[in-house]
Amino acid sequence: MPKSSENRPVIAVLGATGAVGREALRILEERRLPPEQLRLFASARSAGKTLPYRGEGLPVKEASEESLRSCGADLVLGMTSAAVARRFAPAITGSGAVFVDNSSAFRENLEVPLVIPAVNPGAIAAHRGILSVPNCTTVITLTAVAPIHRLSPVESMIVSSYQAVSGSGEKGIAQLRDEEKALAEGRPLPPPAAYAHQIAGNLLPQIGEPLPDGFTSEEAKMQREGRKILQTEALTVNCTCVRVPILRCHSVSVTLRTAAPLPLTAVREALISAPGVRFFEGENYPMPLLAAGQDDVLVGRLRADPTDPRGISFFCCGDQLRRGAAATAVEIGALALSSR
Amino acid sequence: MPKSSENRPVIAVLGATGAVGREALRILEERRLPPEQLRLFASARSAGKTLPYRGEGLPVKEASEESLRSCGADLVLGMTSAAVARRFAPAITGSGAVFVDNSSAFRENLEVPLVIPAVNPGAIAAHRGILSVPNCTTVITLTAVAPIHRLSPVESMIVSSYQAVSGSGEKGIAQLRDEEKALAEGRPLPPPAAYAHQIAGNLLPQIGEPLPDGFTSEEAKMQREGRKILQTEALTVNCTCVRVPILRCHSVSVTLRTAAPLPLTAVREALISAPGVRFFEGENYPMPLLAAGQDDVLVGRLRADPTDPRGISFFCCGDQLRRGAAATAVEIGALALSSR
Repeated sequence: MPKSSENRPVIAVLGATGAVGREALRILEERRLPPEQLRLFASARSAGKTLPYRGEGLPVKEASEESLRSCGADLVLGMTSAAVARRFAPAITGSGAVFVDNSSAFRENLEVPLVIPAVNPGAIAAHRGILSVPNCTTVITLTAVAPIHRLSPVESMIVSSYQAVSGSGEKGIAQLRDEEKALAEGRPLPPPAAYAHQIAGNLLPQIGEPLPDGFTSEEAKMQREGRKILQTEALTVNCTCVRVPILRCHSVSVTLRTAAPLPLTAVREALISAPGVRFFEGENYPMPLLAAGQDDVLVGRLRADPTDPRGISFFCCGDQLRRGAAATAVEIGALALSSR
Repeated sequence: MPKSSENRPVIAVLGATGAVGREALRILEERRLPPEQLRLFASARSAGKTLPYRGEGLPVKEASEESLRSCGADLVLGMTSAAVARRFAPAITGSGAVFVDNSSAFRENLEVPLVIPAVNPGAIAAHRGILSVPNCTTVITLTAVAPIHRLSPVESMIVSSYQAVSGSGEKGIAQLRDEEKALAEGRPLPPPAAYAHQIAGNLLPQIGEPLPDGFTSEEAKMQREGRKILQTEALTVNCTCVRVPILRCHSVSVTLRTAAPLPLTAVREALISAPGVRFFEGENYPMPLLAAGQDDVLVGRLRADPTDPRGISFFCCGDQLRRGAAATAVEIGALALSSR
């Protein structure tokens, strides 16, 4: 199969019509990828639609082994469920394309690098065709944790999240919007479509499936992914993941313990100079509203932990759809293509 | 001044037109206090209004030293700012009435008991005319912490809160309602009235004034009040207080460390049998929506802390206006009157 030249890579977006897929298109537009170098794929239900891209309407094709194999892509950005990613990965890698997958399908696979470009870009080189984007909350949290980890290894973290409905894709966004509209108009709420309960005016302190140890599948991700990304098997993470009635940015309250006690001034300096971090202090603090549409992770409320001489606390926010997913995938893909 | 008999106590609500004051009236209605035993006071701005109570309209009088002194109250429930509470406390106690104050004015005064009826009712007996209701987040958190503290003393807590706008009174509720209405109608948002920033669709990770150590005045309360209520000067608390776009229930993610390691089964049993606690497990979990209008604190997501062999984590929710303020004040008042 003919491949495009390295200078004019063809990029396919698998799951182009979902919340993260659409965000990926916006990021590729910002990067001025010509439409002729872009291919869009989605499920049979969405195939046949056109999506706006740089003033044109690009057709969405049905994803199949054959259509992905023959599309001429150098890079496939996977913005689908884990099941869909697993199904199409062999066809994608078999065609010679690099597959950057946003799902959980390959994150724990030892042969698949799990990458946050600002944290462990060096891991990309070892890929064998597939690269994984970490869970969105992991990306946002570890972008802020990594600069501290470089000063002294992080031994443990206690994390409480404030996760937007965009983390559940278009259906989470639709449920919050529909409920808020009904509340504002004084109408009865529609039955919840994405969650087990109403999310407008409510919190859901259970994301993912409950596990026997009392944590959830979502909460377990940060320890497993954190160990792989920071390359420290001893890391323990106590995570409480909470869905909040916010459209698209995740926030995280973090208290971590480092191997050695760190002066707060050194932590502050490390965060100020860290790639992908915007540091807030004084009367300013990170908020979802400020993070929306941004690629930086906003970090603030930095202080020493009074419960532990080696403890440090901070609060951070990041755009779940961009930094937590689409922008990270696009950056990993660009780095992987440039190192071919 | 003639006092009513103990069997027919006269109760005055100071700050009756505010969010907590109105909630206190609802609770007194539920307790079937006859209207003739109730006196309502507010600032000059609200004086002259009438408030519905058991089918009648009760007049709101202007609060003054003289009006409070001469109203014949046995008990005054203070639902005002700290400044107003400080101003009127001498007149109230001078008249022989018991003053149960919901503000921060007297919480740290060593002569004033700081009481959560489910936690330290015995502290009430030592009062000299004034009793303080703890901060709402402290009440909700410590109601869940106290049963564990009785098994083994709590040494430290790491807490992240999800606090409703009702914690800022009517003006916080109004800002969220006005902003959500404008968003639903596609109108520009009005300038924020209660907070520094928009709260609809946003989080504000700064409640109270910033302190030199990086915490806020709100966050410092839980350590100071926790030490007094649990009678343990060694308690350290690392609190991150976050305002969320929710109308009236506060939630808290808690990780605590006890002096001795505790089996999770013992903690579970203690929470199930604890006064004022409703325990959730399995597929059920506390949510603000379930806590609204309830006096119980809802506790769930109980699990061992993987970062510390003496650590325990849980999530809890409570109605900020009821359990966090009005119901606690009414219960303290009833206990103080019954012990006269």
